[in-house]
Amino acid sequence: MDLTEALPLGELAAAFAALPVFPLFDTAYFIISILYLKYEPGAVEMSRKSPFASWLCAMLHCFGSYILADLLLGEAPIGYFSHNSSVILATAVWYLMFFCPMNLFYKCVSFLPLKLVFVAMKEVVRVRKIAAGVHHAHHLYHHGWFVMMATGWVKGSGVALMSNFEQLLRGVWKPETNEILHMSFPTKASLYGTVLFTLQQTHWLPISEANLIFFFTMFMIVCKVFMTATHSHASPFAPLENLICPVLFGSVSSGHPGHHHDHHGASHEVSHPPPPPPAKSKEELNEGTRKRKAKKAE
Amino acid sequence: MDLTEALPLGELAAAFAALPVFPLFDTAYFIISILYLKYEPGAVEMSRKSPFASWLCAMLHCFGSYILADLLLGEAPIGYFSHNSSVILATAVWYLMFFCPMNLFYKCVSFLPLKLVFVAMKEVVRVRKIAAGVHHAHHLYHHGWFVMMATGWVKGSGVALMSNFEQLLRGVWKPETNEILHMSFPTKASLYGTVLFTLQQTHWLPISEANLIFFFTMFMIVCKVFMTATHSHASPFAPLENLICPVLFGSVSSGHPGHHHDHHGASHEVSHPPPPPPAKSKEELNEGTRKRKAKKAE
Amino acid sequence: MDLTEALPLGELAAAFAALPVFPLFDTAYFIISILYLKYEPGAVEMSRKSPFASWLCAMLHCFGSYILADLLLGEAPIGYFSHNSSVILATAVWYLMFFCPMNLFYKCVSFLPLKLVFVAMKEVVRVRKIAAGVHHAHHLYHHGWFVMMATGWVKGSGVALMSNFEQLLRGVWKPETNEILHMSFPTKASLYGTVLFTLQQTHWLPISEANLIFFFTMFMIVCKVFMTATHSHASPFAPLENLICPVLFGSVSSGHPGHHHDHHGASHEVSHPPPPPPAKSKEELNEGTRKRKAKKAE
Repeated sequence: MDLTEALPLGELAAAFAALPVFPLFDTAYFIISILYLKYEPGAVEMSRKSPFASWLCAMLHCFGSYILADLLLGEAPIGYFSHNSSVILATAVWYLMFFCPMNLFYKCVSFLPLKLVFVAMKEVVRVRKIAAGVHHAHHLYHHGWFVMMATGWVKGSGVALMSNFEQLLRGVWKPETNEILHMSFPTKASLYGTVLFTLQQTHWLPISEANLIFFFTMFMIVCKVFMTATHSHASPFAPLENLICPVLFGSVSSGHPGHHHDHHGASHEVSHPPPPPPAKSKEELNEGTRKRKAKKAE
Repeated sequence: MDLTEALPLGELAAAFAALPVFPLFDTAYFIISILYLKYEPGAVEMSRKSPFASWLCAMLHCFGSYILADLLLGEAPIGYFSHNSSVILATAVWYLMFFCPMNLFYKCVSFLPLKLVFVAMKEVVRVRKIAAGVHHAHHLYHHGWFVMMATGWVKGSGVALMSNFEQLLRGVWKPETNEILHMSFPTKASLYGTVLFTLQQTHWLPISEANLIFFFTMFMIVCKVFMTATHSHASPFAPLENLICPVLFGSVSSGHPGHHHDHHGASHEVSHPPPPPPAKSKEELNEGTRKRKAKKAE
Repeated sequence: MDLTEALPLGELAAAFAALPVFPLFDTAYFIISILYLKYEPGAVEMSRKSPFASWLCAMLHCFGSYILADLLLGEAPIGYFSHNSSVILATAVWYLMFFCPMNLFYKCVSFLPLKLVFVAMKEVVRVRKIAAGVHHAHHLYHHGWFVMMATGWVKGSGVALMSNFEQLLRGVWKPETNEILHMSFPTKASLYGTVLFTLQQTHWLPISEANLIFFFTMFMIVCKVFMTATHSHASPFAPLENLICPVLFGSVSSGHPGHHHDHHGASHEVSHPPPPPPAKSKEELNEGTRKRKAKKAE
């Protein structure tokens, strides 16, 4: 039993971890996910021309985490779609987002204060998914540390990790980048989070699961709400990474072209274009595009 | 018990649904599938240079439905290949199609009256697969409506749904389109069919499975035989879609750039080229190409 | 009981087949696999900018065979990652290969005599994997000949069969070629090997598994050591293929544009560029690149 359990904080954390995510938090997750799908160039047109493809993209955005985790663990990728109520709810959100008369639904959920509430609620679901993924993998592979971390990671990152193929479904193909090569904040946070949850599950981190869920969720909410509100791209991990990465890997990671050793005889050719600035999440990129267009329209 | 069962039609339908598909109908399925593979640009050359890759493509065309359904349901994608006799039969059809002396086999199966018979027989197999897929998914997920529909759909559409990757195997890459974005007739018909079979399986459609198989097969045979014989691209679903889609989705679907609402602040950019005309199936496209080349040769 | 068992050779073969591959032979497998990853253009830079992506690529190179076999058989693709010691060992090799001070580790393992030892040891592991794959598939599908051959093949070929997607992870996309269309020696040898092991498993080849492992491993070691030492690209299968393929497939396979029949009405268009010379393995290609750069540097 750790210190936090002695305080009322432990009870708060336990109650928080037991909070049911369906239907409210799940709805917020769907809203934000499909909102960012709508920001994608061509998404609105696709919804008119190929509504089925648009719906399928929306389902990938909403349930990508379950699909990927099931793929990794050899279970049916379509298994989660047996939860009819979740699929119908996500479908309703998709329909309202793309086909609501006068675009009312979109305007409502884009209203910043309300949007920030949904963003916060989405992070609650994300962290829960990471914890559930690690827990499920632990159940199947008691000592499979890497399996636990991988499962938690894909549960947290969701559709971002299959972005190349989700784009392919929309007829877009950008092979020069992917979410693993240039990690956005949610993907990187999910990676660090899954390590923490795995350490907790294997009793290397002396904290209860409920407390870890609580604290990590608070961290994610603060970061994401701040980044969404200010359109900031600064990663909260940057200070720590800039300290550790040069030591471990010989340069600053995440896209900065640091000095690297001259490897005698090894290939120096670079097959891909100059490194991009710190990876913005699809959400951040699209927010910027959206704002510029809104200004142009004005 | 519905009306049709009282008539001899019910017995006919029952007998029809019980007809074994192996080996005759399966052979026809393989013949038509591999025939359309042969129409693909570069397929003949590939069979000479990389016969193994050509064979693998043929296997994808013949068994793609089973592979996709198994992938969806978390079963072994290679599982169907344990049916040695089916694989050997498909291999024999592939070999005769590509390597028969004087191209005799190809000339025989291309003889239009015989080809139309094979096309009809292929539709018998397609509808059976949809029904079997829905049935199998129902067995695993008793109330998984979306799972049933997805399984039936991939069983009916087959390799078309993985066309991007089947082309990749042949060294071709066309990311700007795919079978979900621009649905051809067989894929769309399979989608509507799987909805009907799911409604039937869950007792929402008051018709027996045998009757539904019978009537839907007749519908598919009439459409496909007519479209193959006349090289028509008109979709029989167009009248119904042109009625419903503008109401539900605000424009005509299937590639017509209809008027869409101005979404304040949303992105208007189009990331892909102007929409193509109503999607022709790979088969129809290749038939057109083949005919033009035949005329040129003459 | 076959003749070889009467000789001490039988005992040698049995002892050889029972030799544990972990940790020595597995380490050699990891070293050679990651060495060839390092040769890839941009790999060193990727290790600096995106160390996680670099590590993931290395894991695909080391464990690609297990991932593919599990994918085929509907088991958890991440299952092998529950072997923590193997993953940690592979991680250690990756770290030393890319981040060892003064590039010492790379220089050591590139020292030709030592490298040839590792190459030989890698072939021991490859053949064992083919045998294990066939054996495992036989256990699941007693009469699934094609399943056994497919499983053994992917176990032997490993990451090469998913090269397009491994490259995609590195931000590289080359759809015009793939390992099935233009097979390199290891992939082709694995294909022939899996046929032999399947015939042995189903008692069509009168030889014990231990003896087949022994002889096939010796064959692979001799070929790979010779090809690595001399940078030769000549395939030992070429004489046999040049005899059989023209008879079966009407021309010489593996990239030679032989005469093909004129198919009346069939498409003659070639959708991909002129055929490349006999496929060099990624290893051979990168060795050539590396040597030219080393000469330039001098």
